[in-house]
Amino acid sequence: MTTVRLWTDEDVGRNARVKAVFDDIRLVRKSDFVNNFWRGLCNQPDLLERTWANLKEVMVKEGALDPLTKELIYMAVSAVNGCGYCVHSHTAAARAKGMTAAQHQELLAVIGMAMTTNGIVTALQIPVDKEFLV
Amino acid sequence: MTTVRLWTDEDVGRNARVKAVFDDIRLVRKSDFVNNFWRGLCNQPDLLERTWANLKEVMVKEGALDPLTKELIYMAVSAVNGCGYCVHSHTAAARAKGMTAAQHQELLAVIGMAMTTNGIVTALQIPVDKEFLV
Amino acid sequence: MTTVRLWTDEDVGRNARVKAVFDDIRLVRKSDFVNNFWRGLCNQPDLLERTWANLKEVMVKEGALDPLTKELIYMAVSAVNGCGYCVHSHTAAARAKGMTAAQHQELLAVIGMAMTTNGIVTALQIPVDKEFLV
Amino acid sequence: MTTVRLWTDEDVGRNARVKAVFDDIRLVRKSDFVNNFWRGLCNQPDLLERTWANLKEVMVKEGALDPLTKELIYMAVSAVNGCGYCVHSHTAAARAKGMTAAQHQELLAVIGMAMTTNGIVTALQIPVDKEFLV
Amino acid sequence: MTTVRLWTDEDVGRNARVKAVFDDIRLVRKSDFVNNFWRGLCNQPDLLERTWANLKEVMVKEGALDPLTKELIYMAVSAVNGCGYCVHSHTAAARAKGMTAAQHQELLAVIGMAMTTNGIVTALQIPVDKEFLV
Amino acid sequence: MTTVRLWTDEDVGRNARVKAVFDDIRLVRKSDFVNNFWRGLCNQPDLLERTWANLKEVMVKEGALDPLTKELIYMAVSAVNGCGYCVHSHTAAARAKGMTAAQHQELLAVIGMAMTTNGIVTALQIPVDKEFLV
Repeated sequence: MTTVRLWTDEDVGRNARVKAVFDDIRLVRKSDFVNNFWRGLCNQPDLLERTWANLKEVMVKEGALDPLTKELIYMAVSAVNGCGYCVHSHTAAARAKGMTAAQHQELLAVIGMAMTTNGIVTALQIPVDKEFLV
Repeated sequence: MTTVRLWTDEDVGRNARVKAVFDDIRLVRKSDFVNNFWRGLCNQPDLLERTWANLKEVMVKEGALDPLTKELIYMAVSAVNGCGYCVHSHTAAARAKGMTAAQHQELLAVIGMAMTTNGIVTALQIPVDKEFLV
Repeated sequence: MTTVRLWTDEDVGRNARVKAVFDDIRLVRKSDFVNNFWRGLCNQPDLLERTWANLKEVMVKEGALDPLTKELIYMAVSAVNGCGYCVHSHTAAARAKGMTAAQHQELLAVIGMAMTTNGIVTALQIPVDKEFLV
Repeated sequence: MTTVRLWTDEDVGRNARVKAVFDDIRLVRKSDFVNNFWRGLCNQPDLLERTWANLKEVMVKEGALDPLTKELIYMAVSAVNGCGYCVHSHTAAARAKGMTAAQHQELLAVIGMAMTTNGIVTALQIPVDKEFLV
Repeated sequence: MTTVRLWTDEDVGRNARVKAVFDDIRLVRKSDFVNNFWRGLCNQPDLLERTWANLKEVMVKEGALDPLTKELIYMAVSAVNGCGYCVHSHTAAARAKGMTAAQHQELLAVIGMAMTTNGIVTALQIPVDKEFLV
Repeated sequence: MTTVRLWTDEDVGRNARVKAVFDDIRLVRKSDFVNNFWRGLCNQPDLLERTWANLKEVMVKEGALDPLTKELIYMAVSAVNGCGYCVHSHTAAARAKGMTAAQHQELLAVIGMAMTTNGIVTALQIPVDKEFLV
């Protein structure tokens, strides 16, 4: 259903820049599986390299938020943007990082709650309280 | 700028159902400050009661996610939905629950990263990998 | 705060095509007030004419839905799209067409409810029941 | 394609809280059919109970808007949020509540019209007319 | 999967107003193929006629932007709105108008970049610089 | 109204990493003016550096799309995402790159047209034509 060609491992093997990214993805993720998102990006090595470099910085490098929390946030953003593929891939990633069923369910509850108040607030054009201003 | 009247504490004092909710908000939050969102909801006590009851269940009751994580998710959803008021109120709430500047910055990085890949994936209509299906 | 010039009545008077649209807006709405949206569109008479013609067809012409119901739907779409201006203008229009405070509040409740289930359904990627297919 | 297990009627029969909700859904809707959304929510009885209770309050209880109008608004919100499942389920619900083909078509026209002006207004950052302020 | 009937060429042949629009689509596009969007709109000739008339004005008539640029913008809007069908149809249209693989890839990069900064800006509620005001 | 501190030039001067980015922004843009977005990002030098590096790659480096076309796409994405700040900053950027009033107006028309059909298509759940599949 994609609008571009998804590269097979054979295709990847024929392009040194693309192969280097795929090798790194496999190394970092400790898994041979590389999902379709990356196979679609192969058509433009610049974008592939940049996206993977950014993702490593943001999602892999140790930071102020633990890896699971970051996946939950990623899932929430993807749901609001209506990106079904991203919901699937980051739900799988969150599970791989230890998301329990209870945490998943609570994530849903928070997304649902935020959606509700976002909709009502915007429909009412509530003004920001001066207490919230920095 | 709101499209409905925001109730003052005086108005609230004249309506028993509304006052009960405001009393509970103040009790639960251990603060006298009640923000404009609730003052806008006063116009419909049913919606006010239900929204506060749901919010307590989802955001206040102890659950599988810690309170700060839930605020970060709330901020992310609110940003994607473009709800400026909600961004302000939940940034304040997250700070009150201990969000550090470093965590805030990392939240921004994750939101930005997810937005990017959401956009690219949707623009390419990447098909879900069979490995992601439950 | 707009990114284009908003035309005053004087400006409008100097352009025959634009003036014809403004005259018709005033005639149809039985009011001398023409809101900023139309004043921003004056910069491109084609877009102004087309937008007003479409709006008359959809929102003014008698159809299968009554005028107030159409305004409620318009408000809902505008809220989800985060268009504050549109929320304001169509809340005013709905009131002018008889929206009661109770109807306004129920609209908010429906928007909030739909937002919640939209978010949860997308976050879970619920498959369409075969019973729903035409 | 869902990311969680959808409960069968057999599964439902083994959990008293879940069964109580399903019994009520069937009673209220006067139909044995329970759609996938509720089967996905079974994994978290709290969320299931709360969502059904809210939905009954908002969509079933008699209020200031008639049931069909509420479904039309629900469809509009779901379309803007890009929730295909919700579009399907609430189109079916609207038809069950008497939506005619002409009303359906007019709903589409209003959604389309609102989308257009939302996009243009936001792209121009039109300022709210002082006449719209409460 | 659609919620309305898609008209076949036979159906179209039986309705003079609908047939006139289809004839014009085929004439303007110099192709016998008419895609499903138009077949879904056949159920309401008013909406069909108006949508095609508008589309011809905006996308076909010679204007200040070349046809390919307009398709790229259309693809971007469709991706952000999560409209998979529209992404498919306008990617095909862009290719028919000469979009190269390199241009397609650069479009993706711009969409991704804009999504990122949109998300971060909204999450921070950055105030508009006075230098940007008209 | 922002939720973080915006750095002044004095603040910038006290942080070598931040100053290096600001120097480069000024060099590349051939202007002393640095807008608020970058001043908000100063709070996290990693994110500041990465965002500027990505933006230079996507928006400044010569590629398959000309600079103005990229700004038009950026404006469209920003409008759909409801990012008022981004609409302002990229409208200014587009003008600096030569956008004429006629091009601006045509951009609005295309955004409006795409919004309409996106909304209608999603509300109808139109299936992708097999002719569009790669």
